[in-house]
Amino acid sequence: MSTNKGKLSLKTAEIEKISHLDYFNIAVSVDCVIFGYEQNEFKVLLIESDLEEFKGKLSLLGDLVRPDEDLDSASYRILKERTGLDDVYLQQVHTFGAIQRHPSGRVITTAYYSLVNINHHQLKISDNQVHWHNVADIRAMAFDHKQILDTCHEMLRSHIMEHPVIFNLLPEKFSLRLLQDLYEAILGVQLDRRNFRKKISLKDWVQDLDEMETDVPHRPGKLYKAKAKMSNGTITGVI
Amino acid sequence: MSTNKGKLSLKTAEIEKISHLDYFNIAVSVDCVIFGYEQNEFKVLLIESDLEEFKGKLSLLGDLVRPDEDLDSASYRILKERTGLDDVYLQQVHTFGAIQRHPSGRVITTAYYSLVNINHHQLKISDNQVHWHNVADIRAMAFDHKQILDTCHEMLRSHIMEHPVIFNLLPEKFSLRLLQDLYEAILGVQLDRRNFRKKISLKDWVQDLDEMETDVPHRPGKLYKAKAKMSNGTITGVI
Repeated sequence: MSTNKGKLSLKTAEIEKISHLDYFNIAVSVDCVIFGYEQNEFKVLLIESDLEEFKGKLSLLGDLVRPDEDLDSASYRILKERTGLDDVYLQQVHTFGAIQRHPSGRVITTAYYSLVNINHHQLKISDNQVHWHNVADIRAMAFDHKQILDTCHEMLRSHIMEHPVIFNLLPEKFSLRLLQDLYEAILGVQLDRRNFRKKISLKDWVQDLDEMETDVPHRPGKLYKAKAKMSNGTITGVI
Repeated sequence: MSTNKGKLSLKTAEIEKISHLDYFNIAVSVDCVIFGYEQNEFKVLLIESDLEEFKGKLSLLGDLVRPDEDLDSASYRILKERTGLDDVYLQQVHTFGAIQRHPSGRVITTAYYSLVNINHHQLKISDNQVHWHNVADIRAMAFDHKQILDTCHEMLRSHIMEHPVIFNLLPEKFSLRLLQDLYEAILGVQLDRRNFRKKISLKDWVQDLDEMETDVPHRPGKLYKAKAKMSNGTITGVI
């Protein structure tokens, strides 16, 4: 900034860079909080940290952003590398920049959440260090990853009340019982069955398929499909 | 990552840093989108860019993050330096990391919005390059700042429907007419007076002060105050 009030003295970007060289020594990473749902459990895809400093601790799936990629591209790359999926809903949530958060130096990380159908036929967890974990069971993690996980979980709790994102976790056809189970697992509360069905009906997010469940250990329920889903930041469908 | 499946070979943070030195050459900035409201106009605090490359273009108020500060601290510092205020609502919105977004090199920026009462007695815009601009009038800006402004404006539109953030832009006592004017200015739409009052009443965000406006060029309205406000990311008040 010029100190010559009333007049702006301009500088070139090159001169600014030279005067700020000390600032250009940060690395930026992205961390993907990949959520899934299976057998009544709300899960997240984690790996054991490969750093001595966090030996035995669980870590989110992340990587440093390469010089030739932007933040979203880095997230999609990680998802593709880790799950085989490339058409997945990703949502940037928050950037974490505490000074000492990474033992390798200043690394600022941008967190994304992603919602994956665990039984998707293209889901390929080829790396045998990577496993699904029940979100409710997770305690300490490497780095500030527990805080990042909690922040993304909280954001998801808020999003599922406002937008049709929850369907990205479900198979194409689902019962309202399954949908309610999933809401309860994410919100961590029990919901009243009748109230839940009234609210879902008001939102107009699902369509009755005129089909019934088969092979279930309870009275078969009607099957529904989502009228709209979130896809890469935009809602697709009829809403 | 180890390629030795089933066994994890650990490395130290120091070794990881050495193998990733090329990644530690990014600078991180924060940009503050400081919104205000005055005379029926929804405004934002901007400065003319001091870079030759963006001569004459308007720019957000931002700065590089210093080695000894985290992202939130950098935002509060900028707000304090630029407005004199240190008790202001700040909300992290989104991080922008396009490869070529800054001519000085790779600079990734985290955007915050802030809501300021323009008539606040402590507001001191001492720098005479810094001015309030009507948001609706802003066209091209320096860097990707128009995109950042639009993203923050969109986030604010969504937040004012869900949380009691809008009161941070208003004086302590306000009429429902003023509140509706402000909603309309932010949303960019006209609202039906009766519907608006019904919705605000349902939200239970305001309290009737049993006082009337004075010195207004229209029929004096009742004065209200906010029951709750957002303050540094948390809601304070009685809600």
